[in-house]
Amino acid sequence: MAIDRNLVVLIGGVGGAKLALGLNQVVRPERLTFVVNTGDDFWRLGLKICPDLDTLMYTLSGLVDPAAGWGVAHDSDTVLRSLQENYGFEPWFRLGDKDLATHLMRTQMLRSGNTLTEVTACLTDRLGIRARLLPMSDAEVPTIVDTAEKGELGFQEYFVKHRWQPTVRSIRHQNCEGAPVSTAVQMALAAADIVLFAPSNPWLSLAPILAVPGLRATLKDLTLPIVAMTPIIAGDAVKGPTAKIMTELGIDVSAKSVADYFGALINGFVDDIRNQPFEDDRLRLARMDTLMTDLPAKVSLARAILAWIEGWAS
Amino acid sequence: MAIDRNLVVLIGGVGGAKLALGLNQVVRPERLTFVVNTGDDFWRLGLKICPDLDTLMYTLSGLVDPAAGWGVAHDSDTVLRSLQENYGFEPWFRLGDKDLATHLMRTQMLRSGNTLTEVTACLTDRLGIRARLLPMSDAEVPTIVDTAEKGELGFQEYFVKHRWQPTVRSIRHQNCEGAPVSTAVQMALAAADIVLFAPSNPWLSLAPILAVPGLRATLKDLTLPIVAMTPIIAGDAVKGPTAKIMTELGIDVSAKSVADYFGALINGFVDDIRNQPFEDDRLRLARMDTLMTDLPAKVSLARAILAWIEGWAS
Repeated sequence: MAIDRNLVVLIGGVGGAKLALGLNQVVRPERLTFVVNTGDDFWRLGLKICPDLDTLMYTLSGLVDPAAGWGVAHDSDTVLRSLQENYGFEPWFRLGDKDLATHLMRTQMLRSGNTLTEVTACLTDRLGIRARLLPMSDAEVPTIVDTAEKGELGFQEYFVKHRWQPTVRSIRHQNCEGAPVSTAVQMALAAADIVLFAPSNPWLSLAPILAVPGLRATLKDLTLPIVAMTPIIAGDAVKGPTAKIMTELGIDVSAKSVADYFGALINGFVDDIRNQPFEDDRLRLARMDTLMTDLPAKVSLARAILAWIEGWAS
Repeated sequence: MAIDRNLVVLIGGVGGAKLALGLNQVVRPERLTFVVNTGDDFWRLGLKICPDLDTLMYTLSGLVDPAAGWGVAHDSDTVLRSLQENYGFEPWFRLGDKDLATHLMRTQMLRSGNTLTEVTACLTDRLGIRARLLPMSDAEVPTIVDTAEKGELGFQEYFVKHRWQPTVRSIRHQNCEGAPVSTAVQMALAAADIVLFAPSNPWLSLAPILAVPGLRATLKDLTLPIVAMTPIIAGDAVKGPTAKIMTELGIDVSAKSVADYFGALINGFVDDIRNQPFEDDRLRLARMDTLMTDLPAKVSLARAILAWIEGWAS
């Protein structure tokens, strides 16, 4: 039985996409909205690349490379190899051939004057995705990572080129003061019954969304379940640099630190059964198996989270 | 022994590229300049496609698909198929994956503010081409074909989408009044010892070059060998629509018609040994085997043409 409440999920990265796939099977698609981090977006080869939107689109459409959790399955790299071999182009950012089709379509539509929100609606529609994917903003808000070894790096330089090895000193969101929340995001939040932060990296994937002016204030005004989840399981991230960054920023690597990060923005928190329990009077706390190793685990976690939240009312 | 005279070749299309390959082996590359038709250029998928420049670049660099005479050898079409399958993009214009690398590089450099002349110099340099390729103009001068069945068509619509089947009523060169000859072309012509029209389709591939304001006048002022060649052999084109278009425009399908087309612009003409001889008091006429079935034939034709022209002085 599909859940028939308006769910808005703030999301980014590969970890978030796993839960998204579960939610997509549990919630009626016309009730499901993803507000997606675009801080990772960048221009490469004259093309607009939106890694988090792409990961979510490929995941929900079934195109995704299941081993990597991003990119298109069975993709080739003929274009990139030709760029390198014939023109000396440095291929540090992998652009698969099938993936390039997406970037070409998106870029062309953007250059024709459409907003990223409009373009994303068109692309997801063509891919047969019924849930709504909303970029957090139509303006460009690139995430800049200040590192000890390399100074300031664009997000993809930090994450892909340098494989998130440099030590993070701070993270900022360039141009965020000039990036209003899109009307579509505002309307989705105004109609929401539940808001969920996906188990994405809070500092890299969710902070950019919260940096969009007006978004924090909008969330604070909502009187409904707003729930975050731990990306930390048994003292480490499932994948990626969450734990490493927490350490570098001087934050204790724990679910409690993540809950504290969201602070008064949330009123519920899903912790993992493997973690040390903690208490927080401000929060409703649940403990679940959040590892999501396969599709049934994703679906069952999504169902469990929503069932728990439904129970708050009673 | 490489020929050490400044040769400027006005050129377009696949037929022209065959002779270019021969000339490239016969003339010292720093003496060899190609002024290339850009009337076929168009935008597709947000990318600038320059078919005649591409054909010449691929031919001279050895990348070309030898069977087709254009495109890159052993190319795949993963991007185009993904565009079609995932996004419903209509794939009437073939864009190979390896070919796309060229369009991506070019478009990015153009969008960065470089002229097409500058971009082409960079691309040819990367491809190891030592002869100079100059677009006829840095402005866009799209060739528009007026047809009986479909009305006005952009060149690639006419040529590729409709496989040059519609009946041509007339051909025009949009925006040509606003497209000055580039400085590089002017300088190349000013330094030329010999000017050669490649055996390209005069109406589709060479007329656009001659339509660039100032080019005809510049040619008329030159007092040096200016030689055209027949693309018609034994009453037909070797490949492509030259004979068909001549018929549709009410022109007798013969080498003489081609010589007449160039009129006072040329003072020499290379006819094919298979054609009926004709006389023209204004012209030096040579008869050669112009079929160019393989590389030795291309080289030997290039050598024969230049040897014949060298003989004019004595």
